[in-house]
Amino acid sequence: MRKPMIGVMGAGRYATAADCKEARELGRLVASKGWVLLSGGTAVGTMDAACQGAHDAGGLVVGVIAGADDSNMSQYVDVPIFTGMKGGRNFINALSSDVMIACGSMAAGTLSEIALALRFDKRVVLLSHENDTKALLSRLGGEQLRMVETPAEAVAEVERLLMP
Amino acid sequence: MRKPMIGVMGAGRYATAADCKEARELGRLVASKGWVLLSGGTAVGTMDAACQGAHDAGGLVVGVIAGADDSNMSQYVDVPIFTGMKGGRNFINALSSDVMIACGSMAAGTLSEIALALRFDKRVVLLSHENDTKALLSRLGGEQLRMVETPAEAVAEVERLLMP
Amino acid sequence: MRKPMIGVMGAGRYATAADCKEARELGRLVASKGWVLLSGGTAVGTMDAACQGAHDAGGLVVGVIAGADDSNMSQYVDVPIFTGMKGGRNFINALSSDVMIACGSMAAGTLSEIALALRFDKRVVLLSHENDTKALLSRLGGEQLRMVETPAEAVAEVERLLMP
Amino acid sequence: MRKPMIGVMGAGRYATAADCKEARELGRLVASKGWVLLSGGTAVGTMDAACQGAHDAGGLVVGVIAGADDSNMSQYVDVPIFTGMKGGRNFINALSSDVMIACGSMAAGTLSEIALALRFDKRVVLLSHENDTKALLSRLGGEQLRMVETPAEAVAEVERLLMP
Repeated sequence: MRKPMIGVMGAGRYATAADCKEARELGRLVASKGWVLLSGGTAVGTMDAACQGAHDAGGLVVGVIAGADDSNMSQYVDVPIFTGMKGGRNFINALSSDVMIACGSMAAGTLSEIALALRFDKRVVLLSHENDTKALLSRLGGEQLRMVETPAEAVAEVERLLMP
Repeated sequence: MRKPMIGVMGAGRYATAADCKEARELGRLVASKGWVLLSGGTAVGTMDAACQGAHDAGGLVVGVIAGADDSNMSQYVDVPIFTGMKGGRNFINALSSDVMIACGSMAAGTLSEIALALRFDKRVVLLSHENDTKALLSRLGGEQLRMVETPAEAVAEVERLLMP
Repeated sequence: MRKPMIGVMGAGRYATAADCKEARELGRLVASKGWVLLSGGTAVGTMDAACQGAHDAGGLVVGVIAGADDSNMSQYVDVPIFTGMKGGRNFINALSSDVMIACGSMAAGTLSEIALALRFDKRVVLLSHENDTKALLSRLGGEQLRMVETPAEAVAEVERLLMP
Repeated sequence: MRKPMIGVMGAGRYATAADCKEARELGRLVASKGWVLLSGGTAVGTMDAACQGAHDAGGLVVGVIAGADDSNMSQYVDVPIFTGMKGGRNFINALSSDVMIACGSMAAGTLSEIALALRFDKRVVLLSHENDTKALLSRLGGEQLRMVETPAEAVAEVERLLMP
């Protein structure tokens, strides 16, 4: 039985310090549950923070990399998948996440990952503090989308979703 | 000088009759301006309707096809690009649209195309009658996104955006 | 009924003058048959030459572009599909060619397109003057691959393959 | 420092028993060196065999999966990356292999992976017993390609190539 792979998606350059703190905590909690962390793996913002959190907690970190090599890659990625597709690789993040957690200030790239996950009938846990983000995505996501307020709640929700 | 390629994106299975009517009109207007129509090219919903509108007006219709062959393809597609990537091909729609028009009831696939277009610094004209869709996307899109109420306004906005 | 789309694949930077001459002639003949020309659309080597040949003969030229914009694109492309996938886009060339013609000095990129076309059960017409290329590909391609010596023979073979 | 990721590429359905035996041995040796094994991850032929060899030796097995889910996936894959791109995903195998080992009876899919790896300036170790395969690929690959006769030689060659 392979370990569940949990995507943590969030802003890169536009991430705030608070976003990164939440992402780091998400990475830590995902690893502490024994799950594999999947992220876009760029060395910036919530991607870097989630990777660091999981790495520091001893977890396995998979990065689906926008570039064709490791030049902008988070140093915390253990298994890089190089796509060279830039933001085009976002659909692979969506398909490869057993459950996706989306966090932090909404950015266009993250929104595309959530939308693709919903399109592919995946479950998404949304850790957002933005009313407009929550309003649209809860309507579009229906039963596929769960809203939470903290990293701990996000991971508890993933745990429920992974139950058979 | 090649002709501008204008993406018209909208729901497939979940499109309403009103959505399809708008999409057909968008297709017709895009073709009447001498632009090439780009769409997902599936034989359903707004994709089929936009292709039909452009085709019936004598325009060139390009479809970036989700499948690997023409089994679910709109009969109005002149130039099919087969990707076999399912919804994964949405980023190609975003990259290949000189300007994207998104229309109709928001669906996850369409939302991913808008988000990817914004991510790629493309301009998007949003023809939507949904307040939650407009609220989130106008905030995220900023200057890249223009909101309109009718197909005629959408095409007038594209025309302005195409000016040098 | 849409027009057949014929891929013409060959070397970019490594193309010889003779390769380009053949590719230009292939482009001209494809257009003169009323078929759409598909190529990688880069402004170099056989890609540029095939596009020019088809364009000068009044044909429609589709380019599945390696870049995310038109910065290295052949000026003869009418319909660019921007992928931003670099050589990763080669499989789309293979899937989108109703028949593929591969020409000129074999290069790694072209070989990948032929191999992918065979993998996708497509027919390939190989215009090659290299014994090692012909030896391996005729064995692997079996009935899917036809070997020819001139552009005129290539187009005659495509014509046979397009018959119902 | 992440562990090197070594791609082992070879035929699926068309693999012989001897091909699978070599692939299993390659998987075992890759894992015993402490490297991560990357493969197409399908539950057939050399893909399944290489995954099994690495898994049984306690290695980490990454699969870049052709499908969008695990329905045809080797049971020995620890980290599946779902692409839904069918053979289109082969370029990701090429980009993500620090060194690629290609083995067994040449098939169109494997040939595309080798060609793409060469196209992306990657090093390829070719374990082949076919004269036509060796003739063409040694010419096209030049310094990027090393020919070997056994799994042990393949892994020794990878070891040399990984040295700084």
